Amino acid sequence: MLQSTPETRGERGRRLLDEIDGEAGHAVIAGLQDIAPDFAELLFEFPFGDIYAREGLSLRDREIATVAALSAMATAPKQLGVHVQGALNVGVTRQEIVEIMIQMSVYAGFPAALNALAVAREVFSARDVKVEGQ
Amino acid sequence: MLQSTPETRGERGRRLLDEIDGEAGHAVIAGLQDIAPDFAELLFEFPFGDIYAREGLSLRDREIATVAALSAMATAPKQLGVHVQGALNVGVTRQEIVEIMIQMSVYAGFPAALNALAVAREVFSARDVKVEGQ
Amino acid sequence: MLQSTPETRGERGRRLLDEIDGEAGHAVIAGLQDIAPDFAELLFEFPFGDIYAREGLSLRDREIATVAALSAMATAPKQLGVHVQGALNVGVTRQEIVEIMIQMSVYAGFPAALNALAVAREVFSARDVKVEGQ
Amino acid sequence: MLQSTPETRGERGRRLLDEIDGEAGHAVIAGLQDIAPDFAELLFEFPFGDIYAREGLSLRDREIATVAALSAMATAPKQLGVHVQGALNVGVTRQEIVEIMIQMSVYAGFPAALNALAVAREVFSARDVKVEGQ
Amino acid sequence: MLQSTPETRGERGRRLLDEIDGEAGHAVIAGLQDIAPDFAELLFEFPFGDIYAREGLSLRDREIATVAALSAMATAPKQLGVHVQGALNVGVTRQEIVEIMIQMSVYAGFPAALNALAVAREVFSARDVKVEGQ
Amino acid sequence: MLQSTPETRGERGRRLLDEIDGEAGHAVIAGLQDIAPDFAELLFEFPFGDIYAREGLSLRDREIATVAALSAMATAPKQLGVHVQGALNVGVTRQEIVEIMIQMSVYAGFPAALNALAVAREVFSARDVKVEGQ
Repeated sequence: MLQSTPETRGERGRRLLDEIDGEAGHAVIAGLQDIAPDFAELLFEFPFGDIYAREGLSLRDREIATVAALSAMATAPKQLGVHVQGALNVGVTRQEIVEIMIQMSVYAGFPAALNALAVAREVFSARDVKVEGQ
Repeated sequence: MLQSTPETRGERGRRLLDEIDGEAGHAVIAGLQDIAPDFAELLFEFPFGDIYAREGLSLRDREIATVAALSAMATAPKQLGVHVQGALNVGVTRQEIVEIMIQMSVYAGFPAALNALAVAREVFSARDVKVEGQ
Repeated sequence: MLQSTPETRGERGRRLLDEIDGEAGHAVIAGLQDIAPDFAELLFEFPFGDIYAREGLSLRDREIATVAALSAMATAPKQLGVHVQGALNVGVTRQEIVEIMIQMSVYAGFPAALNALAVAREVFSARDVKVEGQ
Repeated sequence: MLQSTPETRGERGRRLLDEIDGEAGHAVIAGLQDIAPDFAELLFEFPFGDIYAREGLSLRDREIATVAALSAMATAPKQLGVHVQGALNVGVTRQEIVEIMIQMSVYAGFPAALNALAVAREVFSARDVKVEGQ
Repeated sequence: MLQSTPETRGERGRRLLDEIDGEAGHAVIAGLQDIAPDFAELLFEFPFGDIYAREGLSLRDREIATVAALSAMATAPKQLGVHVQGALNVGVTRQEIVEIMIQMSVYAGFPAALNALAVAREVFSARDVKVEGQ
Repeated sequence: MLQSTPETRGERGRRLLDEIDGEAGHAVIAGLQDIAPDFAELLFEFPFGDIYAREGLSLRDREIATVAALSAMATAPKQLGVHVQGALNVGVTRQEIVEIMIQMSVYAGFPAALNALAVAREVFSARDVKVEGQ
């Protein structure tokens, strides 16, 4: 009767974090274990279990929104890197990510766009190395 | 030989501003006439003539990115209102706009999301009044 | 057997929002009803049901932290007003609120401190009027 | 022996606030009287008595820096208005103020520049009305 | 007659900086010596000699406010580290610091909270190493 | 007939970027070549070809504004470093740059000022090493 148990928020969040952010998401969670393991739980539950699980906006559009927001805010390059990976994982292309960041020059200025592009470049390179290394 | 003249950046920008932001965009331009008419020209040329005119990202995705960024930055409610209109004009639905803003609670906090939703509510209402008034 | 039903996150959040923010919190919720009623539910559940309900930090300290953060961020005067009320409701004094805001001049600059003080002044006045009007 | 008493920080600050911001500065101070009169004193002493009184940068250059910073931060339109007045009072021209704000589109985005220009327009208009009214 | 000389702002600031931030504060001051020694003096005088010396808010509450503000602003991880130390020095517990940062996810978003927690983790570790090394 | 060809925006931008930012500017452009070469072109054309080329504000005043804005925003230390160099190249003195940054403590807080001064110190040192190395 396992199939009759509805998925909890935490389980749904874990599944979505895994689907969207993959390894990069796991690293974020791992980093919380020794200081705030509860917050790791909240991170599964609220952003992923509650928000990304909502209907009404595709995962692809959600990642476009997140990459745009983190590029514009310009205060969280590490999390931007995680979501560049997330965006690629749910079907946003490299060119589209670059375009989103270039467009942020209009709304948040050229330095924000330049720093976002530097993050994207690093993520793209790391993925290329990994593919080549296989 | 008119057809052989390539569209200038300014002309292309005017056309795109008109297509995307419509009346709300015209109001922004009008507000610049007595203080910085040159900047109105730059606004046609760079954001619209140069950026929105680029290939590689659909207008729909560009507006998703802009609504997300302005919601997260939380410093430009007026321009967010213009882009809520812009998003609707290029095919983003009301529900999708609301979802983008709710998602910003994860990246920029609940106050940013709440204030963005207040802007969306105002724009949606104004459009309803206009439709009913016709 | 009603007493054996554990309080849900939403119920706990409603109770805490009521205890902390009182009327000001209700107004925030009411403002969401026609545009994003789901988000009102998330607001009960996550910030109040999950976060404010946590042990390890008193409600008084939580409101000191929130008033400081919103004063420093300087992008959400309306929510700052709600939390000035919240702070007063859980035992932070007017003088302490003023001191927190003055201190923000060091970390976020004088304009942030001045604008936060203007919010506090408005909330304090409204409360005085209400008391006098009774 | 009055002439031998060195000016205090507060006195120097009052004198400079008066010279730079004039009436607009007085309004800021007046707004603090009923909520945080001590902070008004700190405002005379630190920004004006300590900082603007320093050598090594002209008052004109100091106001260029302040108008640029407040335009770019985009969180304090009221204080930006005070410093547009301050800039005019120490010899920055209207055209220069407009240029500074236009330039901020590069570093903080077009919405920041547009909202700063809206503040400048309001200050310029108010000064024109005042001159005409004399 | 030494005891009759009132403490100057600079002396009071030095004493408070020492009491609150300890070594971490000294490092900030040392870093200014070759570029802006005057600013080191202003740092003693205004934030510490003027603000932290004020009555009306305990040092413990002042550090709660500062940790919250710097976590939410997300632009000054180094200074946040100094104030995590300061908070510990005046009696805020590790658990309380972690709770303040978790709470910032509500007001400034999850990336701000995650990056603040990373700073806290580093400070906590360094203190543990130091204790063990004694 | 070379002299009769008007300079294009891109050419004018290249010339100004070279004049203002020198080597530091070239490094920014080089960093874009493999990820977004088009954006390098836009960077020549809009900020430099369009904005810095405008009349009405001297290059010296433009760099004072930029150093102030980037210090206050506190999100782009790398670009601030480029503009500290730019400011020195167009005649702003080291002392003036330090003063601008100290002044930002008033508008954006002490952490922003401290972090900007750390950037300036690094740029000044690198230039000293270079001069000594010749």
